[in-house]
Amino acid sequence: MNSLFFAGDKTFDLQPVVAAAPQPGEVQLRVAYCGVCGTDVHIYHGAMAHRLRLPQVIGHEVSAEIAALGEGVTGWQVGDRVTVRPLQPGADDPSDNGQRHIGKNLTFIGIDSPGGMQSHWNVPAHTLHRLPDNLSLTLGALIEPLAVACHDVRLGGLQAGEYAVVIGGGPIGMLIALIAKHKGAQVLVSEVNPARLQLAESLGLATVNPKETDIVTCVDEFTNGAMADVVFEVSGVAAGVQAMTQVARARGRIVMVAIHADPKPIDLFRFFWRELQLIGARVYEPQDFEEAIQLAASGKLPLEQLITQIAPLAEAKTVFETIDNNPAGMKYLLHC
Amino acid sequence: MNSLFFAGDKTFDLQPVVAAAPQPGEVQLRVAYCGVCGTDVHIYHGAMAHRLRLPQVIGHEVSAEIAALGEGVTGWQVGDRVTVRPLQPGADDPSDNGQRHIGKNLTFIGIDSPGGMQSHWNVPAHTLHRLPDNLSLTLGALIEPLAVACHDVRLGGLQAGEYAVVIGGGPIGMLIALIAKHKGAQVLVSEVNPARLQLAESLGLATVNPKETDIVTCVDEFTNGAMADVVFEVSGVAAGVQAMTQVARARGRIVMVAIHADPKPIDLFRFFWRELQLIGARVYEPQDFEEAIQLAASGKLPLEQLITQIAPLAEAKTVFETIDNNPAGMKYLLHC
Repeated sequence: MNSLFFAGDKTFDLQPVVAAAPQPGEVQLRVAYCGVCGTDVHIYHGAMAHRLRLPQVIGHEVSAEIAALGEGVTGWQVGDRVTVRPLQPGADDPSDNGQRHIGKNLTFIGIDSPGGMQSHWNVPAHTLHRLPDNLSLTLGALIEPLAVACHDVRLGGLQAGEYAVVIGGGPIGMLIALIAKHKGAQVLVSEVNPARLQLAESLGLATVNPKETDIVTCVDEFTNGAMADVVFEVSGVAAGVQAMTQVARARGRIVMVAIHADPKPIDLFRFFWRELQLIGARVYEPQDFEEAIQLAASGKLPLEQLITQIAPLAEAKTVFETIDNNPAGMKYLLHC
Repeated sequence: MNSLFFAGDKTFDLQPVVAAAPQPGEVQLRVAYCGVCGTDVHIYHGAMAHRLRLPQVIGHEVSAEIAALGEGVTGWQVGDRVTVRPLQPGADDPSDNGQRHIGKNLTFIGIDSPGGMQSHWNVPAHTLHRLPDNLSLTLGALIEPLAVACHDVRLGGLQAGEYAVVIGGGPIGMLIALIAKHKGAQVLVSEVNPARLQLAESLGLATVNPKETDIVTCVDEFTNGAMADVVFEVSGVAAGVQAMTQVARARGRIVMVAIHADPKPIDLFRFFWRELQLIGARVYEPQDFEEAIQLAASGKLPLEQLITQIAPLAEAKTVFETIDNNPAGMKYLLHC
């Protein structure tokens, strides 16, 4: 088997490795595709160094076939097509409030332990979700980010007929917008990158470039004065945080999807004045994976158009460089 | 009749006025007591000058008897004992989302129009709530702030058995804590003023002084590691905003009760990481008044102990000076 080791300092080594047999409760996967997540790009840039033991195989957006079953694994067969929910819950903590997907002692497979950018990958069987026959393995590699978006939309409580504003049109923002539209919401995507704006429009989404148009005026017009029922803050920048409270209507829900490393000033008066809600949303629960798989298999989302490039694992370094140089790109898949 | 006019610059004039007959749809009240709200103190200090036309009668925490009925008023009789929900909805705005109690064109009686610090007061009949016979008129003047607290607890979705942390032990914070305890929550009040801490303890509430004890450690111990299901931020200070995200458990709800005039830095990462929720809460809806009246009439809350002083209307200036000099005081009532 071949494994792509991230060695720090923007370097990767693709090395032949002797495949380990799956441990009890694990399966060995033959990885088909592994998508490159924003988190992987952060790691490539040296972030999260405190969590990684280098060299480390990263990656967690995977489609695969089961190559071997470890002892005690039931319900799965060699050859089954699957994707992986890369969460390994740790010991329960009372402050987790039963939310195991964000537990204090949770580890994330592909960051805290080896990931999917390799030809063979051993993972706990409890992380598997079955891919239906009519879902391609390329789209199967999009299930993990799609499950993130399903989780965000679900926690925002979005209903058909509501107005949704998605601030930030990267891969997750775009998936949120597509799901929201599919659920019958009227969706506006706010994004500053012209190529991403063009892609959003080609996907049938309404857009605004807040660098060119006042976003509050635009949302006011888009909603005929109603303003947004649900706002998704996916930009991670201060301007997005400023806009999110301005474009929400009374009792509007603002879903905090982006990772804001530093505290940012928030208009708390407006939370009080308009009884706004802020809802933090992180990763996913099993039902989000199931919903993502159903949505992808239904063919009702234009997911193929979000795949910017598919490249062999050996070209990973070039792919990461391309992502750095092409912020308008969406999903890059590595063929493992 | 006598009316207490606030004339700006911390001055009041008590003047005899010819009582106006109630307009159609209005009632004339004979005011019994009018509580002094934090907002009244802000006005006394010169805040909200842009909203007030001076001289203005302020005050909105009222118990009263109906003295006369305007044309078309039904369902009420002279002599009925009432309190006032001092909200006058304006024209509906689409961005109000049907939430008339916080509508864009809402005016607040006692700020935007004459208030209750006078012997007779004409108000729209739709603002009235009946006081039961077994509820004293002194406690009747506490219904408005109690309704604020009922609204905050309701929007926080507090359930029996949950852990609640109230940051800020002023009148509203104290009422929230008492209601939360009455509903079966385990309540901890965070406050820095020793006299307020003592009062909270005398009311049977657990307390912490975050200037002396680390609040995170204290909440951890108080909750046996579970941390807070619901946090009420009633302090209005940066330290409260910082603490609110630290003491909440996964998916904890943080109710934003305080008025933060300026944007403050918030730990958005923690909202994401622990899937926290922030819930803005402002004033009240009719059901909150009904709940407040039932609670007060039940005699199950130690509301009398929250009344610091009752003074005649003529001594209003001294009362406002006392409030300034005695930040440990709770409710001051003016006998009108």
